[in-house]
Amino acid sequence: MIEETSKENIDKRIQRAAEAFQFLKNTTINERAEFMNAVADQIEALGEELLAVTHAETSLPLARLTGEKARTVGQWRSYAKAVAAGIYTEPRIDLAQPEKQKGDLRKYHVGIGTVVVFGASNFPFAFSTAGGDTASAIGAGCPVIVKAHPAHPKTSQIMADAINTVVTAFGWPEGIFSHITGTSYETGAYLTQHSDIQAVAFTGSLQGGKALFDIANRRENPIPVFAEMGSINPVFAFQNLLETKAEILAKEYMASLTLGVGQFCTNPGLFIALKGNSLDRFINTLKDEILNVAPANMLHKGILESFEKHKNIAIEQPNVEIIASANTTTEDGQGHASIIKTNAQTFLNNPVLSEEVFGPFGIVVVCETIDEIREIAHQLKGQLTITVAATDEDLRDNLTLVSLLKDKCGRLLFNGMPTGVEVVYAMQHGGPFPSTTDSRFTSVGPDAVKRFVRPISFQNWPDEFLPEELKNDNPLQISRMVDGEMNSGSLKLQTT
Amino acid sequence: MIEETSKENIDKRIQRAAEAFQFLKNTTINERAEFMNAVADQIEALGEELLAVTHAETSLPLARLTGEKARTVGQWRSYAKAVAAGIYTEPRIDLAQPEKQKGDLRKYHVGIGTVVVFGASNFPFAFSTAGGDTASAIGAGCPVIVKAHPAHPKTSQIMADAINTVVTAFGWPEGIFSHITGTSYETGAYLTQHSDIQAVAFTGSLQGGKALFDIANRRENPIPVFAEMGSINPVFAFQNLLETKAEILAKEYMASLTLGVGQFCTNPGLFIALKGNSLDRFINTLKDEILNVAPANMLHKGILESFEKHKNIAIEQPNVEIIASANTTTEDGQGHASIIKTNAQTFLNNPVLSEEVFGPFGIVVVCETIDEIREIAHQLKGQLTITVAATDEDLRDNLTLVSLLKDKCGRLLFNGMPTGVEVVYAMQHGGPFPSTTDSRFTSVGPDAVKRFVRPISFQNWPDEFLPEELKNDNPLQISRMVDGEMNSGSLKLQTT
Repeated sequence: MIEETSKENIDKRIQRAAEAFQFLKNTTINERAEFMNAVADQIEALGEELLAVTHAETSLPLARLTGEKARTVGQWRSYAKAVAAGIYTEPRIDLAQPEKQKGDLRKYHVGIGTVVVFGASNFPFAFSTAGGDTASAIGAGCPVIVKAHPAHPKTSQIMADAINTVVTAFGWPEGIFSHITGTSYETGAYLTQHSDIQAVAFTGSLQGGKALFDIANRRENPIPVFAEMGSINPVFAFQNLLETKAEILAKEYMASLTLGVGQFCTNPGLFIALKGNSLDRFINTLKDEILNVAPANMLHKGILESFEKHKNIAIEQPNVEIIASANTTTEDGQGHASIIKTNAQTFLNNPVLSEEVFGPFGIVVVCETIDEIREIAHQLKGQLTITVAATDEDLRDNLTLVSLLKDKCGRLLFNGMPTGVEVVYAMQHGGPFPSTTDSRFTSVGPDAVKRFVRPISFQNWPDEFLPEELKNDNPLQISRMVDGEMNSGSLKLQTT
Repeated sequence: MIEETSKENIDKRIQRAAEAFQFLKNTTINERAEFMNAVADQIEALGEELLAVTHAETSLPLARLTGEKARTVGQWRSYAKAVAAGIYTEPRIDLAQPEKQKGDLRKYHVGIGTVVVFGASNFPFAFSTAGGDTASAIGAGCPVIVKAHPAHPKTSQIMADAINTVVTAFGWPEGIFSHITGTSYETGAYLTQHSDIQAVAFTGSLQGGKALFDIANRRENPIPVFAEMGSINPVFAFQNLLETKAEILAKEYMASLTLGVGQFCTNPGLFIALKGNSLDRFINTLKDEILNVAPANMLHKGILESFEKHKNIAIEQPNVEIIASANTTTEDGQGHASIIKTNAQTFLNNPVLSEEVFGPFGIVVVCETIDEIREIAHQLKGQLTITVAATDEDLRDNLTLVSLLKDKCGRLLFNGMPTGVEVVYAMQHGGPFPSTTDSRFTSVGPDAVKRFVRPISFQNWPDEFLPEELKNDNPLQISRMVDGEMNSGSLKLQTT
């Protein structure tokens, strides 16, 4: 039974977070990076007990959890490194020009204020309580209030304890991090509409993310909501590639579609190609491959039920045919990975088939002409990823179509499969609506910090009272733009 | 009489803009910079006729318009330089690590799509048809549809013609720039809710900006709205400064408050200080200074009427006293610059007194204690600017209060006055709601380009098909982050 944190308690925590923000605003990037590295150490030191608890709560295999834990530790460390490098403070200095009556202007980025984080069920470490949203918000200089995901409450508590241990060890205000528990919709809504909350980060369903987005925009002072809400991650397969590699592509596709029982937000749920012998070979290989998928539990019973329900809605649509199916879950023996096929006109005219089914489910759309493929690309909603399965020649033959696909996603792959999201600077995990609420930001990679900062300019401010990032002698030795040119030195001022 | 562009015509222009976006997406930063410099040349070449037309439409003095025209030309050129430097494409490359099974990832920023610009009446050049929003959107790679401000239709048409001349000269698709005219609310709403529009930039009233923001967020695919909606730009005067400089400060304040008949968004409409002899000296100087203000017309009759109406609403509030007033407009002899005073408790408890009165109107809030000043700071809504009139010692004595003020504005001044917005990198023209809808961005300075880009990642994409910004040999010779380090060279790849 999960305890519902009371409104009084939530209010108290929001108040403490506001106080902690005043403290955090005056920390340097180095101090925040040290804090983040200490959190990484703390999580890294959590032993077998954590893995056992999380395995029991999520059914995720221990090997996967071991990897995800390492990734989570790596997130804290790599974001800390980026924060310490001063990348997200982005200092800009335009020196005074007294002869032109122009004053001294210095701008940098500060934390936006208290951030509420709603974790995801499918990544109990990397996208949850101590996940990327929490790490990037603290890196930006923002206190964090986590609403724990009710599917893994014990895991969430262990992670919250790890962060709080570091808060205590550093002697920082306790309001820097708060852990709220509960299952009610009202708790999330209450947090989002509170006037002292300045941003929200969410990973989950379209319904949940859009509800928070709407609440945030109806506030007297609207705030940004960064919701990652899922995607069907289309694969567009072109003719030359399909001819030479139909079987290999089918194996790759099946492996990606069923990886982690299909519970990845970059799961490739849609495959689009021209009809013909090559596509038949691809489909025939899928039929064989699905039988090799090892059954495993889904995250929890609710997800299994939702998967079966939404999958069956898709299967029951007219002009749809099951081409591959096998029992791939162990819980109750009810979960069947399935792939259906349909034709382009059916897909284009039935919006049900464009909705995400969270789990191992895919649709192969068989197109009569390249114009139908173009029409699907044109009609496509925003996606986290799009994969172009093609040869160089295919790309050359389809430049206009590929250019159009750029408008529909955050990450464009040339072959390979979209599952597997590297935590690096060049990652973009975020795409046009409805895959996320704001395609201008990523929730993976150090650039995730950008979501939680805003610029402030100081005009003619005395050096003594400027933040370290903007002082004349550049004590943090970071790269700054001075009069339009990048510069890592201290300022050579003509006046004394 | 202003012609209302028909819905059919608007639809056609949106369609053309979508086509132009596919073209713009494949232009290089150098090509867009050349285009922007050509627009600057074209506007610069517009002679006395432009100034005469705009003077007739806006009543703004020729000297001011000459300066604003130069500023507008300067905006196009400085944004072009920043675009050509590749700052806003922000390339990030993480090379493949085959031994770790990590692919090659390359991210950069592309234009977000078609942008609708609503210009302001108070800056017919710099914040209107060919103003900073249009320049920064085109710099980002976005087609622009301008909804002309009905207060200066001829000026708007001359500017639109200037841009279109360059579009034709470059042989670029005409959809890159469109000029829509009309006075109806429906036209603006129609543009904002059209599914092919990807962002909106607006400068004007809170009512107008918030209406567009709400429309944009209610769309099936919500889009960002960058609305700059005004501000009362408080001046917090501290004791030591006030004691030594009450008279000088009063002169500066009066000059800033009545500059351009008070029609600047950074007009300092609020002055907060402790009661006492120094503040009395400040107020007495205001009484004298207001008599020296040279009368001038406001922008148009509607603005004069609105000024008088809202000023009188403020004056009629309880516990309010006029301390300085003089006729400062020539039109109908009705416009009186006015300054009122009230006490802190009245100001704190009457929200009417915190509303912007667009024009030469100010409120002096006389505080009994520093706690009352702190309470005002705490209750303050978001502002474009806050000015701290202080000595170093005052700052030292009020660190907590000054830290709080940082949360309430985009630009913090140490003495001086906030009117005068430099077009430089370190400028932040944008603050917490309701001064703007998005405090994370500026509408002045080259960084304004950031509003209209979004990142896209390419995974394992063949070099031939990558954008110039991300190719191995770095043909644009821009600074890029490669494996976490900044680098202006070409990539040294180990494989051939």
